Amino acid sequence: MSLAGRSLISLWDFTKAEIETLLSIAERMAEAIGLGGRERRGSFEPMDRILATLFFEPSTRTRLSFESAMLRLGGQVLGFADARASSTSKGESLADTCRIVGGCCDIIVIRHWLMGAAKVAADFSGVPVINAGDGPHEHPTQTLTDLFAIKRVKGTLSGLRVGLCGDLKYGRTVHSLAPVMARFGSEIVCIAPKALQIPEETLAEVENLSGKRPEATEDLAEALNDLDVLYMTRIQQERFADRREYERWRGIYVLTPELMARAPEDLIVLHPLPRVDEIEPAVDRDPRARYFEQAHGGVPLRMALLASLLGLQPAPGPQRRYGLDVQPQPSAVPETAEEVRSRGRQVVENAPPCRREGCVTEVWDSLPSQAYVLPDGRQVCAYCERALAEA
Amino acid sequence: MSLAGRSLISLWDFTKAEIETLLSIAERMAEAIGLGGRERRGSFEPMDRILATLFFEPSTRTRLSFESAMLRLGGQVLGFADARASSTSKGESLADTCRIVGGCCDIIVIRHWLMGAAKVAADFSGVPVINAGDGPHEHPTQTLTDLFAIKRVKGTLSGLRVGLCGDLKYGRTVHSLAPVMARFGSEIVCIAPKALQIPEETLAEVENLSGKRPEATEDLAEALNDLDVLYMTRIQQERFADRREYERWRGIYVLTPELMARAPEDLIVLHPLPRVDEIEPAVDRDPRARYFEQAHGGVPLRMALLASLLGLQPAPGPQRRYGLDVQPQPSAVPETAEEVRSRGRQVVENAPPCRREGCVTEVWDSLPSQAYVLPDGRQVCAYCERALAEA
Amino acid sequence: MSLAGRSLISLWDFTKAEIETLLSIAERMAEAIGLGGRERRGSFEPMDRILATLFFEPSTRTRLSFESAMLRLGGQVLGFADARASSTSKGESLADTCRIVGGCCDIIVIRHWLMGAAKVAADFSGVPVINAGDGPHEHPTQTLTDLFAIKRVKGTLSGLRVGLCGDLKYGRTVHSLAPVMARFGSEIVCIAPKALQIPEETLAEVENLSGKRPEATEDLAEALNDLDVLYMTRIQQERFADRREYERWRGIYVLTPELMARAPEDLIVLHPLPRVDEIEPAVDRDPRARYFEQAHGGVPLRMALLASLLGLQPAPGPQRRYGLDVQPQPSAVPETAEEVRSRGRQVVENAPPCRREGCVTEVWDSLPSQAYVLPDGRQVCAYCERALAEA
Repeated sequence: MSLAGRSLISLWDFTKAEIETLLSIAERMAEAIGLGGRERRGSFEPMDRILATLFFEPSTRTRLSFESAMLRLGGQVLGFADARASSTSKGESLADTCRIVGGCCDIIVIRHWLMGAAKVAADFSGVPVINAGDGPHEHPTQTLTDLFAIKRVKGTLSGLRVGLCGDLKYGRTVHSLAPVMARFGSEIVCIAPKALQIPEETLAEVENLSGKRPEATEDLAEALNDLDVLYMTRIQQERFADRREYERWRGIYVLTPELMARAPEDLIVLHPLPRVDEIEPAVDRDPRARYFEQAHGGVPLRMALLASLLGLQPAPGPQRRYGLDVQPQPSAVPETAEEVRSRGRQVVENAPPCRREGCVTEVWDSLPSQAYVLPDGRQVCAYCERALAEA
Repeated sequence: MSLAGRSLISLWDFTKAEIETLLSIAERMAEAIGLGGRERRGSFEPMDRILATLFFEPSTRTRLSFESAMLRLGGQVLGFADARASSTSKGESLADTCRIVGGCCDIIVIRHWLMGAAKVAADFSGVPVINAGDGPHEHPTQTLTDLFAIKRVKGTLSGLRVGLCGDLKYGRTVHSLAPVMARFGSEIVCIAPKALQIPEETLAEVENLSGKRPEATEDLAEALNDLDVLYMTRIQQERFADRREYERWRGIYVLTPELMARAPEDLIVLHPLPRVDEIEPAVDRDPRARYFEQAHGGVPLRMALLASLLGLQPAPGPQRRYGLDVQPQPSAVPETAEEVRSRGRQVVENAPPCRREGCVTEVWDSLPSQAYVLPDGRQVCAYCERALAEA
Repeated sequence: MSLAGRSLISLWDFTKAEIETLLSIAERMAEAIGLGGRERRGSFEPMDRILATLFFEPSTRTRLSFESAMLRLGGQVLGFADARASSTSKGESLADTCRIVGGCCDIIVIRHWLMGAAKVAADFSGVPVINAGDGPHEHPTQTLTDLFAIKRVKGTLSGLRVGLCGDLKYGRTVHSLAPVMARFGSEIVCIAPKALQIPEETLAEVENLSGKRPEATEDLAEALNDLDVLYMTRIQQERFADRREYERWRGIYVLTPELMARAPEDLIVLHPLPRVDEIEPAVDRDPRARYFEQAHGGVPLRMALLASLLGLQPAPGPQRRYGLDVQPQPSAVPETAEEVRSRGRQVVENAPPCRREGCVTEVWDSLPSQAYVLPDGRQVCAYCERALAEA
């Protein structure tokens, strides 16, 4: 069950046990870099491995977090921070670009505006690939960072009541967090105005996984009373074509010290950041506000992931403590066939081509036409994972 | 009197003794990297510390100099080279950005167009911060580089006659160099057309520190006869709204071989670079032209600064010679209360908010309203250090 | 015959024996990084040397290849990926920029849109410089990568029949590859429509070197029968002012599985990449398609070059195997005076200034006016190497 040599395109690429093992390694990494106390900080020896960060779309936070993780491990980094600096302007296919970059590095982190771009990189580069966001499709390390924050404070991922609040329609992070919390046996509460509610598809997926349809409400103040985790999100300005539409929703939910005063004592507040107006700075001083800690956890989490996919071995002695001697932990909640539905493994070759808007197959039509078969027999495009029309 | 863990926002953050110690460490660093002769070059072992370079405004020279310094020390670098690549476009506050970046690194170098941005980084990031230019406010490592160049050639910072020539109105470097030379007991001569003379505020500060008002003249040829140091500056094109106004002043002072022929033998010519037309390339061959040497000194100076703020300890053996065993040198000229006026220490909380143009408080109004008290009792905004209106 | 401390501006800076030695070192490097089999991968210790990559024009492929090479050697990298991030906007001369960057690093790789820019860097920086493309003038590491690919598969650079196909008028790579293959005693076949044929100047140079004028044809299918190496190139869209003109030629030569079926069994297909339409993706699976292998060879080739110019010595023990104990190999084919014509050594100072379009002397007129004398007595501008008008 080693992760060495594998890629992370979607959270479904890992079983629950693999996710839990990764979080345990991340905890070791957090300790090694002194996250929970500088005095316990260890040190890492240099390591001759190179990470290539291919950011076809800028994302400073995510990029710096990955680069920091690789440098903390003792490795090296090269790459580009936005597409303008890449040679895609000369009309090269993404597959060719990845094939060539694969010869310059040992592992790739890619961010792209097209769904399926990370899968293309994994298929053609010859090295492990981590998806750092492929359009509206997936951004699994953000979700792993969320899980790591919850696990560190709550000690578990099961049996929790997790409120998602804000722009649940366009906010990609909640589309990933909701199903994975359901996989781990937690309950979801969706707090949003009707116009920005979570898509029916995600609701159905959560229900399918947990046997229970998430509650939906517009009332943050009331919902707050009963939550273990409040996950705030910003209104995604860039997704609104109409500026007035954005202004209408911006500020609809604002977490204030007054609201916090009435919230449970053991609540924790998370946020994928950046925030705009939805959490008042005065809340930052509340010990239940854990969003900066959450963000800081992104570095050891990514260290654990890079080390695992690179197959680094723990070295003897006090140096280079990769934490990879952590044994995979069997999941507390048994995995159902539903949960490990092994997307990405049951591949249909020569499937009907997808080529829909936003899918990588729309732009490069010579990519192999592949589909994945879901447990209910439906086929989804292997790149954007949207359901294919009936053949 | 250790600098470990501290930040450098303004030159007033360091006493004269601290500055002199830093220059001594820089001299050791210069030797270790072979600046004064490749044959004496030492070597540095890798070090698991990360510098984040946050350049919200491009500045290749300054950025590369810091990056080179950190790499020469054996450390690592991440960051961004201009604001376009940052997530500020999503509306995040600078405080939040710095808080998150602080989790990715061990020290931050920041350049920003807003006055006070470096102070915000220091207040929120949790790691030491170096100001690499915050709008028209401060750029202390440029001034330290200037001091290092003078000290290396002249052997002292006291008792010198230093001519500042060119655009003294908009040239930020001279606004910092003039007061610090006065602190060290040197004399200032301001060579500029009336329209581009040094601001009255800076003149008053120098007079206040040295008890002597700087001379002012328009005549470079004459002033030259009597100088130990000539500090040339370019006309700051980007500060002129009107192109014709710029063209009028450009070329008003041009240092030529003819002028140099009549200048003292022990004069040295410095320039913060880049130059445009104000020093003819033919002057480069004159042994008194020290501006490239000055620029090269920026690397060991920044090595000394990074090593000091990171609190690196000198390692035994021939490797990793950080030079930090240099003992702080008591300043030759005694420090007056005036000199160590400890800006940044006497803080007034809940001061009247500044929010003036170009100050970081104008953009982010949730920053704490802080003021510093000057020795004469006046209060200045703690961010942009401009005098606050009477309460 | 050591390369230590030297610069590579043009392929004529190296003798054939030096090129062959470099290719032998590159072969060792390829082995050390596991190019020909991961199981044989070695490791490199950290090395305190810094490469500055100065890309005034973006070129992701070339930049990442150099950065990977330096990091693989254990060194460090700083620099910029495109001109917008540089301070050239403040009107600084290229000579000044290079002089300052030289103080931040141990070796420079430069790409610039002006011919001669790399020579300026070599003249002013004080460190070895590698030309990574100076406008239409030279891009020698691409050509060395081509030679390395040919040598690895064919075992020799002599006695081959090399077909160049596509846009031979604007494709810079073929203008370099043709003469050097002629120097090594191979034959050139130019496959292009008349409007995009190789310039007469290059034809003359090849004839001059090999005593034989290259064949020219428009028929790829026929030419294919008789080739050892087919070097495909893309139509350089960015060189056509007129979009319709580009569309007319794009797709004129497309290498298909059908064409490959009729080609010799020991043919190899190369391409400098990126490709657009000129090689169908289905050809990638053909074992004779070697263009990705060729691209991957660019890393060890650049490792060999960086190590040689930096004068790195092979370390004892299993680590840091620079391969520099390779003894220079005398060239199989004797060198004629013609071949080692030592451009760059017979310098005429105070030559008539060039200042023609695209030459670095057009922009900075204070550069020294230098010319090189060719064996036939003609003088060429030392920057752009175009013939100077009669004095």
